[in-house]
Amino acid sequence: MIILGIDPGYAIVGYGLVSAQGGKFKAIDYGAITTKANSNFLSRIEFIFDSLNTIISKNKIDALAIEKLYFRSNQKTAIQVAQARGVALLAAQKARLPVFEYTPLQVKTAVTGYGRADKKQVTEMTKRFLSLKEVPKPDDTADALAIALCHAQTSGARFRSMMIKRRLNNAL
Amino acid sequence: MIILGIDPGYAIVGYGLVSAQGGKFKAIDYGAITTKANSNFLSRIEFIFDSLNTIISKNKIDALAIEKLYFRSNQKTAIQVAQARGVALLAAQKARLPVFEYTPLQVKTAVTGYGRADKKQVTEMTKRFLSLKEVPKPDDTADALAIALCHAQTSGARFRSMMIKRRLNNAL
Repeated sequence: MIILGIDPGYAIVGYGLVSAQGGKFKAIDYGAITTKANSNFLSRIEFIFDSLNTIISKNKIDALAIEKLYFRSNQKTAIQVAQARGVALLAAQKARLPVFEYTPLQVKTAVTGYGRADKKQVTEMTKRFLSLKEVPKPDDTADALAIALCHAQTSGARFRSMMIKRRLNNAL
Repeated sequence: MIILGIDPGYAIVGYGLVSAQGGKFKAIDYGAITTKANSNFLSRIEFIFDSLNTIISKNKIDALAIEKLYFRSNQKTAIQVAQARGVALLAAQKARLPVFEYTPLQVKTAVTGYGRADKKQVTEMTKRFLSLKEVPKPDDTADALAIALCHAQTSGARFRSMMIKRRLNNAL
């Protein structure tokens, strides 16, 4: 299974492609879609949409995992981020990718086993899980990989518990 | 000049096409893109994107006018609306339409000449300006026409004031 993790934004969209095979995780590709600070918002969301389409079309992705959005203190930023996130969701939908949303708490718990882990711990565990030599930069990229890992583990856990239930049912 | 006015949303997107020629305004087409309440969010934004693309490709539109977004009391709704609005903006950008944003106050003032006008007064004036027999329904459609009218008047005013300035400059 190949998962595309997305850390949504309009200035920087972090992305991470993670393959999950038999409980082993590998980073296939990762990076950041960076839009020009002096370009207008319309060009920015178009660039994000086109870049995601390219990533999606070049890889055999099974699912998109994206961080759940919450209100922030800055109204304008929150609206811009949500608008850009809508465009990312459209790219997924156009490619008929199932989309899974995770809260920061879910990501932390899945990656470190500890809901109160700090950013550094999450990044460090992401690096270890994916056997990366260095912590991915910028933070948005590391976050995207963590979200992809979160889905890999969560869906894996779901799959495992489903298999256990099946075995139990068969045994009865 | 043909203006597409949009009242953004994810359940209902109101739209109104207004032509402005020599200070006269005409409603070319108007309606609402309604997404199924029981469909998932991804299908909804895709339907909105596709429907807007169809409207844009069928008409020679010069500009898109859309209501500026503000935070609402309901977080979840606000995020969904912003995400759907991002998709509407992407449709405009893909067609290289210039986008103009107006606050509710600007729309009210442009259409009724009075910033404290209530919804009914705005709708009534929209109906009169466009010589419509009946008030357009749903409210989202009436709002979209009002936004288109607002742009028609604002850009007309801008154009007129530009011409006056030019004449003054020439006279000097």
